[in-house]
Amino acid sequence: MDIAKLSDKIVAGDRRALARAITLVESSRPDHREHAAELIETLRRKTDAQAVRIGLSGTPGVGKSTFIESFGMMLTEQGLRVAVLAVDPSSARSGGSILGDKTRMELLSRNPNAFIRPSPSGTHLGGVARRSREAVALCEAAGFDVILIETVGVGQSETVVAEMSDLFILLLAPAGGDELQGVKRGIMEMADIILVNKADGDLKPTAMRTCADYAGALRLLRKRPYDPEGFPKAMTVSALEQDGLSTAWDEMNTLVNWRRETGHFTGRRAEQARYWFEDEVKQALLAQLRTGQARAALDRIGDQVAKGQTTPSKAAAQLLQELQKSSE
Amino acid sequence: MDIAKLSDKIVAGDRRALARAITLVESSRPDHREHAAELIETLRRKTDAQAVRIGLSGTPGVGKSTFIESFGMMLTEQGLRVAVLAVDPSSARSGGSILGDKTRMELLSRNPNAFIRPSPSGTHLGGVARRSREAVALCEAAGFDVILIETVGVGQSETVVAEMSDLFILLLAPAGGDELQGVKRGIMEMADIILVNKADGDLKPTAMRTCADYAGALRLLRKRPYDPEGFPKAMTVSALEQDGLSTAWDEMNTLVNWRRETGHFTGRRAEQARYWFEDEVKQALLAQLRTGQARAALDRIGDQVAKGQTTPSKAAAQLLQELQKSSE
Repeated sequence: MDIAKLSDKIVAGDRRALARAITLVESSRPDHREHAAELIETLRRKTDAQAVRIGLSGTPGVGKSTFIESFGMMLTEQGLRVAVLAVDPSSARSGGSILGDKTRMELLSRNPNAFIRPSPSGTHLGGVARRSREAVALCEAAGFDVILIETVGVGQSETVVAEMSDLFILLLAPAGGDELQGVKRGIMEMADIILVNKADGDLKPTAMRTCADYAGALRLLRKRPYDPEGFPKAMTVSALEQDGLSTAWDEMNTLVNWRRETGHFTGRRAEQARYWFEDEVKQALLAQLRTGQARAALDRIGDQVAKGQTTPSKAAAQLLQELQKSSE
Repeated sequence: MDIAKLSDKIVAGDRRALARAITLVESSRPDHREHAAELIETLRRKTDAQAVRIGLSGTPGVGKSTFIESFGMMLTEQGLRVAVLAVDPSSARSGGSILGDKTRMELLSRNPNAFIRPSPSGTHLGGVARRSREAVALCEAAGFDVILIETVGVGQSETVVAEMSDLFILLLAPAGGDELQGVKRGIMEMADIILVNKADGDLKPTAMRTCADYAGALRLLRKRPYDPEGFPKAMTVSALEQDGLSTAWDEMNTLVNWRRETGHFTGRRAEQARYWFEDEVKQALLAQLRTGQARAALDRIGDQVAKGQTTPSKAAAQLLQELQKSSE
């Protein structure tokens, strides 16, 4: 594989080369992994193109596809190039991955300035995270201005997406006041901007009330020392009627520009790189348990634990001792 | 520390000894850890007392404390001894741990046949899980008939609780149909019985509708090959009016008895022991990164990653190579 040539094509904006490169980073074959690492490293040296990476979380039913379609189209009309990626570790199990059905984003998927890529398959969040993160790096090197990284609002995938995003947007549907507690506090704390979608037709009053509820809840959270007055904030939008989207984009830019000026933008990216480095080390350590002598010992001692012949703690200590001895 | 004497007292039902033993397993001091492992192992040899371990999940506001109070009192009135434990890794951060305030279970907390213990402190789920699991083993050795393990319905703590329970109960509040999606599919799949609480007064019709909605949703999930017809199931209860609690207990017993007869009860406990054994091995491996040479290398190479001098993947490979070399 000619990594130099592939990287040239990606930087030149060749979409087929980009798609091929993403397929490469999604592969778990050892030779592909090596090539992928080399490609990412080559691109790092070759370009310092920087997109705005926007994480977008929302449970099914909040209108995420419609939002991405409308918001993405608006951005392309402003002359921006937009990439859409997804992180959904459950997609393999549930059968239908988010973004798998491009027809839900009919206009955007045919737009020459947009690039849509479904979630890599796999139920292991660690693996999905690594591939998505490298796909973000590839899209960035390919010169996209905005990268939308969407995830369904379930499980740990929000944390993963937030750790590869510059901004984290939480998309919600209008709902009764009682539902406020349904949104996990941790996700509220991650959100830079909460968008209450479907602020149109009969739902408009409910959307405005929901928005006010969340604005109130956001005020109760600790203010972040690195953000300007008024952030995090809640706003209403209507993806269907394309209403409020440009205001939302303005707010995102206000926040991004502030963070660039204060150095927080770069600082956060540095911290994220460190986070992913440590995460890869951990994943690699744990992967050692899946093969060879360690796997055999795990199974053998695990059988004793399952039979009640020893306790989990005693057995774990015994296994680690065995592994240590054999590596000496 | 006289482990033999302590274990004798626990088996004899000495509550103060039990409380002291739980404090011991909650400690992270190395000598305490050693004593705790020895105590658990001693108790494993000494008794094969078996409680019914019931995991209970519910977000704040569903009436969990009232439920535990009413349900626990009913069980003690039937002559059963009841222990209540909590798993809440966030309690340290949010300040108020669940069960921290025993006054919310006024009757049960003064009941001589009940034992209530708040969540161990700590924000690290792995650590909280290990301590809670060992506390369950201690309560079981102490001869309790029913162990309720409660958790708040946020984050990964449900999985942890389900992995140490024989039954997993999801407690919900009455709500509009739209809220159905608010409950994560993964948690629905874990639940053996869904209890819609607050089926009293004005909320009764809503509770019954909510219950029907969840019953419908449960039918859509895969049937479990090891459960009798009709499970998992949804039911209404009123903890406030003590209504439906004995029916719920009957259903729990039906399920437990079925699983005992089919061997699934024992089989599941064996799998859980294996799960916790493997989990301890993983935690111990990752703990090695937190100290000494590994920590120093993580920081040093992490700085290079943060500065953009290398990519997370390349850096991780380099670190692992360094660690391997130094252990040879």
